Amino acid sequence: MKIALDAMGGDYAPDVTVAGAIEAVTEADLEVILVGDRQRIQATLSGKRYPQERISLVHASEVVGMDESPSAALRKKKDSSVRRAVELVRDGAADAVVSAGHSGVMMATSLFVLGKLPHVDRPAIAAMMPGMNSFFVVVDAGANVDCKPENLLEFGAMGNAYYQAIFDEPAPRVALLSNGEEDSKGNELTKETFGLLKHADLNFVGNIEGKDVFVGAADVIVCDGFTGNVLLKVSEGLADTIIKMLKREIASLVTGKIGYLMMKPAIRNFKKRTDYDEYGGAPLLGINGTSIVCHGRSTTRAIKNALKMASEMAKKGVHRRIAERLDALHKKNDGEKKHAKV
Amino acid sequence: MKIALDAMGGDYAPDVTVAGAIEAVTEADLEVILVGDRQRIQATLSGKRYPQERISLVHASEVVGMDESPSAALRKKKDSSVRRAVELVRDGAADAVVSAGHSGVMMATSLFVLGKLPHVDRPAIAAMMPGMNSFFVVVDAGANVDCKPENLLEFGAMGNAYYQAIFDEPAPRVALLSNGEEDSKGNELTKETFGLLKHADLNFVGNIEGKDVFVGAADVIVCDGFTGNVLLKVSEGLADTIIKMLKREIASLVTGKIGYLMMKPAIRNFKKRTDYDEYGGAPLLGINGTSIVCHGRSTTRAIKNALKMASEMAKKGVHRRIAERLDALHKKNDGEKKHAKV
Repeated sequence: MKIALDAMGGDYAPDVTVAGAIEAVTEADLEVILVGDRQRIQATLSGKRYPQERISLVHASEVVGMDESPSAALRKKKDSSVRRAVELVRDGAADAVVSAGHSGVMMATSLFVLGKLPHVDRPAIAAMMPGMNSFFVVVDAGANVDCKPENLLEFGAMGNAYYQAIFDEPAPRVALLSNGEEDSKGNELTKETFGLLKHADLNFVGNIEGKDVFVGAADVIVCDGFTGNVLLKVSEGLADTIIKMLKREIASLVTGKIGYLMMKPAIRNFKKRTDYDEYGGAPLLGINGTSIVCHGRSTTRAIKNALKMASEMAKKGVHRRIAERLDALHKKNDGEKKHAKV
Repeated sequence: MKIALDAMGGDYAPDVTVAGAIEAVTEADLEVILVGDRQRIQATLSGKRYPQERISLVHASEVVGMDESPSAALRKKKDSSVRRAVELVRDGAADAVVSAGHSGVMMATSLFVLGKLPHVDRPAIAAMMPGMNSFFVVVDAGANVDCKPENLLEFGAMGNAYYQAIFDEPAPRVALLSNGEEDSKGNELTKETFGLLKHADLNFVGNIEGKDVFVGAADVIVCDGFTGNVLLKVSEGLADTIIKMLKREIASLVTGKIGYLMMKPAIRNFKKRTDYDEYGGAPLLGINGTSIVCHGRSTTRAIKNALKMASEMAKKGVHRRIAERLDALHKKNDGEKKHAKV
């Protein structure tokens, strides 16, 4: 698979993007097209050892800054690294695209250049999160802050197809994030969504409470992008805070210091296991192609893993599987509507 | 202060409620009126040592179950322990009321029996949460799943008055939970709320992201009850999960086991510092009186701390301070409307 990487996107670009690309092509069977300022990328590559036939370069003269609006970027920067990278997918020169630049711009550009899949109203971000024993997917993780029940139904169907493809799991458990696990719980949005998900030919396991998301009660967690963002960011912030607080408590004990040294491998393992870099980026579901958004602060490891994930998704044709799932969902709904009319 | 305690409310009632009452009157300068089945309470009290003049008993023949609807409970169980306990506040026989029973029933009963403060549209639950260096308050923590911007403005004003009173802090930092810290971030609800909070004579510090709530970036965090519930429950679940995962990692190491023993006091301290029992219960803000809801699974320590908090709130007249704050807010708004007309 050939992955187009926005080499200029992200807080540490192009150093980290180039390093991530080199690690990815060294470890995995994939090629990377670095898109961006030719001179800067060549300077960053120079002196590094890597399988040269697996990394190529496409020049783009502009870079979109983190403070630019998506609409302005689309209108004014037609030769930006992110735009050129996405266009490579449209033109069949790449199988997927990855960017750690402005996530709103990456979403808008993917949507504009690649278009939506049939039936999709709102593309969504799918974030992979570490749980007690396995990873789970949150859809939408932040693309759509105000949603209708039909959007959440789509998120469930798209998340289902994505999880199925990535984990070879025939019937992922889909749950609706709510303020209690009883069927009657929820706000206006989730109460109406509940009925839709129940009749959608998904393995819908009902409402899930915030306290159960990490214990493996569901594989796909459906919510609007505002709530999804709160879920993600609270988890990130709390995990950091807990580790810091524990370290502080430990530092205040004499035996604790020795104990900490002895436990260090355990803390390292824990961090590795819950590392957000593990899945590197979050795919945009509902786009006609494979497009992955990475955190602006992505590390080399995160970029590498995002490139691997992009390759995996392209190989498995995740976006086509999403299209099939949505097609089936709409045929079923149309059939029921017809049936209801008779 | 005299606190009415619904002795029959909660998963471990009346054992835990009675034990909590005994600890509270032993440690603090307060009296408790145990409300509920006389025989069962007397049996639980019997043989225990406590300052007898500080615990009294009011009989109530009924108990509201955890699966009953608030409206049915209000209509049919007029001699329930929670109803009688709240009525003691209405009648001036108690200064505050605490219940670990069905939280919806406790809210509805407090609202029905004590009424709302002037200007209040929706009473809200204020939950105290442990952060890195201090506690912060989340309003609404679950009472109102669908809100208007005006409700969130009220939550901010009520949370402000509550935090001021409890921590003697003249200008608590009030923040709006959103999907980013920039002013422009948010969903329809929070964007409109932002403007209201900005002009409300509060120390409004703007939007706060999920990742910053635990690092002490704000004292009062305003959100709708659905999002507040997600914030609370995700934090609770994740903290549990992280401790369990760390223990599992530690158990897999030989040196880790020894390290763990050496670090145990640190982990115990951490748990104590982040213990939700520390604040025992969550007050209902906007009610004409002091009413505190506890978790159904409350421990003796949680009940004790809720009773102490109730006494503290009653002593400081928190509900009167909330009324004053809302009065000032509405006078200001009315003044501005008049001014705008001229």
